[in-house]
Amino acid sequence: MYRTHTCGELSASHIGSEVTLAGWIQTIRKFGSINFIDLRDRYGITQLLLGENLTDQLASQPLGREFVIQVQGKVIERTNKNPQLPTGDIEIDVTSYTILNKAITPPFTIQDDTDGGDDLRMKFRYLDLRRQAVRKNLELRYAVNRSARNYLHENHFIDIETPFLIKSTPEGARDFVVPSRMNGGQFYALPQSPQTFKQLLMVSGYDRYYQIVKCFRDEDLRADRQPEFTQIDCEMSFVEQEDILQMFEGLVKRIFKDVKGIDYTDKVARMTWNDAMLQYGNDKPDIRFGLKLANLKTIFEAQSGDASAKAMFEAAGFKVFNDAETVLAISIPGCSEYSRKQTDELTEWVKRPQIGMNGLVFIKCNTDGSFKSSVDKFFTEEQLKQLAGICGAQTGDLILLLAGREERTRKAASELRLYMGERLGFRKKDDFKLLWVLDFPLFEYAEEENRWVARHHPFTSPKPDQIPVMIGNDPVIKDAANYLSHPYANIKANAYDMVLNGNEIGGGSIRIFQRELQEKMFAALGMSPEEAQQKFGFLLGAFEYGAPPHGGIAFGFDRLCSILGGSESIRDFIAFPKNNSGRDVMLDAPSAIDEKQLEELSIKLRN
Amino acid sequence: MYRTHTCGELSASHIGSEVTLAGWIQTIRKFGSINFIDLRDRYGITQLLLGENLTDQLASQPLGREFVIQVQGKVIERTNKNPQLPTGDIEIDVTSYTILNKAITPPFTIQDDTDGGDDLRMKFRYLDLRRQAVRKNLELRYAVNRSARNYLHENHFIDIETPFLIKSTPEGARDFVVPSRMNGGQFYALPQSPQTFKQLLMVSGYDRYYQIVKCFRDEDLRADRQPEFTQIDCEMSFVEQEDILQMFEGLVKRIFKDVKGIDYTDKVARMTWNDAMLQYGNDKPDIRFGLKLANLKTIFEAQSGDASAKAMFEAAGFKVFNDAETVLAISIPGCSEYSRKQTDELTEWVKRPQIGMNGLVFIKCNTDGSFKSSVDKFFTEEQLKQLAGICGAQTGDLILLLAGREERTRKAASELRLYMGERLGFRKKDDFKLLWVLDFPLFEYAEEENRWVARHHPFTSPKPDQIPVMIGNDPVIKDAANYLSHPYANIKANAYDMVLNGNEIGGGSIRIFQRELQEKMFAALGMSPEEAQQKFGFLLGAFEYGAPPHGGIAFGFDRLCSILGGSESIRDFIAFPKNNSGRDVMLDAPSAIDEKQLEELSIKLRN
Repeated sequence: MYRTHTCGELSASHIGSEVTLAGWIQTIRKFGSINFIDLRDRYGITQLLLGENLTDQLASQPLGREFVIQVQGKVIERTNKNPQLPTGDIEIDVTSYTILNKAITPPFTIQDDTDGGDDLRMKFRYLDLRRQAVRKNLELRYAVNRSARNYLHENHFIDIETPFLIKSTPEGARDFVVPSRMNGGQFYALPQSPQTFKQLLMVSGYDRYYQIVKCFRDEDLRADRQPEFTQIDCEMSFVEQEDILQMFEGLVKRIFKDVKGIDYTDKVARMTWNDAMLQYGNDKPDIRFGLKLANLKTIFEAQSGDASAKAMFEAAGFKVFNDAETVLAISIPGCSEYSRKQTDELTEWVKRPQIGMNGLVFIKCNTDGSFKSSVDKFFTEEQLKQLAGICGAQTGDLILLLAGREERTRKAASELRLYMGERLGFRKKDDFKLLWVLDFPLFEYAEEENRWVARHHPFTSPKPDQIPVMIGNDPVIKDAANYLSHPYANIKANAYDMVLNGNEIGGGSIRIFQRELQEKMFAALGMSPEEAQQKFGFLLGAFEYGAPPHGGIAFGFDRLCSILGGSESIRDFIAFPKNNSGRDVMLDAPSAIDEKQLEELSIKLRN
Repeated sequence: MYRTHTCGELSASHIGSEVTLAGWIQTIRKFGSINFIDLRDRYGITQLLLGENLTDQLASQPLGREFVIQVQGKVIERTNKNPQLPTGDIEIDVTSYTILNKAITPPFTIQDDTDGGDDLRMKFRYLDLRRQAVRKNLELRYAVNRSARNYLHENHFIDIETPFLIKSTPEGARDFVVPSRMNGGQFYALPQSPQTFKQLLMVSGYDRYYQIVKCFRDEDLRADRQPEFTQIDCEMSFVEQEDILQMFEGLVKRIFKDVKGIDYTDKVARMTWNDAMLQYGNDKPDIRFGLKLANLKTIFEAQSGDASAKAMFEAAGFKVFNDAETVLAISIPGCSEYSRKQTDELTEWVKRPQIGMNGLVFIKCNTDGSFKSSVDKFFTEEQLKQLAGICGAQTGDLILLLAGREERTRKAASELRLYMGERLGFRKKDDFKLLWVLDFPLFEYAEEENRWVARHHPFTSPKPDQIPVMIGNDPVIKDAANYLSHPYANIKANAYDMVLNGNEIGGGSIRIFQRELQEKMFAALGMSPEEAQQKFGFLLGAFEYGAPPHGGIAFGFDRLCSILGGSESIRDFIAFPKNNSGRDVMLDAPSAIDEKQLEELSIKLRN
């Protein structure tokens, strides 16, 4: 061993000991013939004192930043103690040193506030990883990993590895594929998730399975998506939805406790998907704050909004609202005195292409009891007052109203709500609020192909009372124009998403475990029986040999870590991430391969 | 939850309780109007008693093997207790049952001694996984996983995930590659190991890293190799060989303790590679028993064997030995009375194509003090006696002698030794003996290309005292005929293999951490500086910014589990293994993919 102690462990109790340390030179400070060095390793920083005895050696073997050195010396008491540092009471009076490895000047500073840009830090990721900020992130990631494993172990889950070289069954996302050399012309796929394997393990009787496992999706990368990502993947047998919710809110609470020291004693909130969409415009609402949407007018899921609001819009003859599918309002407390500049700013904000609205209507519920709006020429003050009442606004509120096509308007209202929440300081990093979103629609309608698409995935069961609806009806949509009246349109999934501070951190469902129901599902997705057999024959077969009721969940491990670490970016929590083009710029991968390799794999490049 | 208890937890203390169980029907035994059912889940088996009250339901809803049922009933005391079974004191007097899922007749019996052949069991792996024998294997695997993680955690290792989509740098084994859609014509590779990443993590200062991680090698599969396999992969900074040996024999001892309840208090044996080859003919000797080789004549590593033996062979004029490069002997205790039939059998055994010897010479050291051999016409009894002395044989031993070309003879002697060890019952499954094999040669000679090949991998450091030899000499071999006199020929690696009962379970090395030395290594392997930069520029670069001394090890997790589980086959310890053609017969993977997928990936099939 090159050291007797790490750079994080020496304290006053070691004074007088002879020690050997090894690490990196963080800084060198020269005072006449004396040099102070901060020596760094994973565990901390220890101050070294290099006195006159080393002047000659320093002349012939000069030291520099990021050099790796080994030092011998005696632990002495510091004259200037540093209470910020665990080792701040002591320093090492160095008697000799050895340079283990030199370092050239790093391309950026190894500090929390580095001067290195994103690209440079990715190219030299091994240096970026030295920064304490990044190291803390990876340590947090390991702490979450360890906490999750402990909880799951204590709850009788066992880690079972599932294969990475599997079969390509493109549903939804695109598979990464791997040409087989031994089976020329054939391909493996990398798993998008271990979904079917964990279900087979339930059929095999393993009862409680988990894995912290890499998954792969060949999608166009938007910011903060990675082609390879990690899931905490779990499955349980003989359970109903309630069992899963309790088990896995327990998991997240345990992680809060172990990793953040937070006792999350609140009951975890629950909300139907329908309520989430109506009240927050979003299926993963941030419930750290209110600012709920008032649905004045809507076509969402056959809802029509508030009748009195609609009647008033018609009476007022305000074309923008009358022509709109949807009118949504948010009451912002204490903002009735926003200036013209401020309301203009908000108007500009909703008109940005990412939001895409034509404008913003506002009503000020002034503290003097008067009402003032941007649409005063259409609405009387009495009508504004009435509208404020419908919106649930209070004196001092600023009501923001958006109108337009249903989907865009709801999305815009959701974004505006989050923006205002941020602006008003309602979205605190250290405030964590969990939410289960329940009762998702099982299907979406795919207009082009006139068929159903599984909203979650094709293995999700309908709610128990809707199984007969699914079994008893033909999934084929005969009247495309009236697809909403097809019995499948209203089937709810036995599925659940866990949402943390406005981010979906996990999702799962109770699974289909009966062959007949699974066949109905595949048929609804437009698969012929032959195709279903070819792609998922192993699963349909497994359901015939005694499959137990089962369900599970998968957590997005990268995302969970980034939220716990208070960061927007999952990349900060991945040791070697890829950039937005799916490239590892440090390795320079992907890259060309030899013609010989291509030949062995029975493939060639297209021109 | 479908149950109040599992099938493994009810005992006499529960008598009188109303319970609900769920599980699989293992067996049904009918006695008149009463049925006994063994209900199975992961946790155990509980006996159910279905009395007359259920006769009608059984007629309309008959039960069968592997049906999944839920039962309500009362725990009662058994009249015929079964002390073998944890639940053997009780049974459930069933009041009602529900069929959760039916089962058709499985293609083989779900029992330890199943009637299913290998292929059938692989096709229906989800049923094979139900067998207790297989379940115990996967549970053992999880126990090893858990134990390793706990030990490594307690020793300050942190689990850091490294990427799966990396760069293809074919050295040694073939890479699996993944065509990139976003970077047309380019490919990722799947990692053969996280080697370079874990070294970069050391450069980044993570100090102690581990991962239990899938690795991939596209090799022709011989029995018991898998294209994807799992490693316990570890790396440490600021360590020398001794530190690694102690840390990781600690790991294996901990696993013995946690998983097998074995206190491995013996000092772990150590042996040089040279001694292993000379004494056991093998670099992974099974040291549960002796039967060491006597090197009567050899050219191994410039050794020449025993001078007196050679002189005697010449005197005797025994052409077979005189013409042979190598003559090796094994003394088998207590077998001097082997019959002609038995010695013929051994002769046939060494002549099998897998062993490939021309014959076997034997000498019987009879208990009456006489000597008898199959070469009596060449050797006098006095010479035989003298030879027995050289071999270290005792009265009652049977000496087996093999002669021929060095490599084949040594390998044959090693195999013969293992065979005799097996035959004599020296290789007990529950006897575990660990061994470190040390001081491997750093290089092998590649005749065709007249260059060096790294025996371990190109990142292994030479022994500290041989670093100057490597730095100070030109790696190019100018005189191919005398490659053995090149200074590189005698460099030993700072590497170590851990051997358990004749199997290599782990291997590693102290790594090169200096750019200059790494460049010498790449040059020795025949890489131009440009090629080295293109393939490993990131690592060479990293070594310039302050790389610490470091080293590590990787354990073959599948193999380790199979040995601990007392099995020859790693496949028994993998949930979803592939067959010898690299196929998953359950999934039917690999398989053809759509033309559209190929097109997106900018590749096409060769005809």
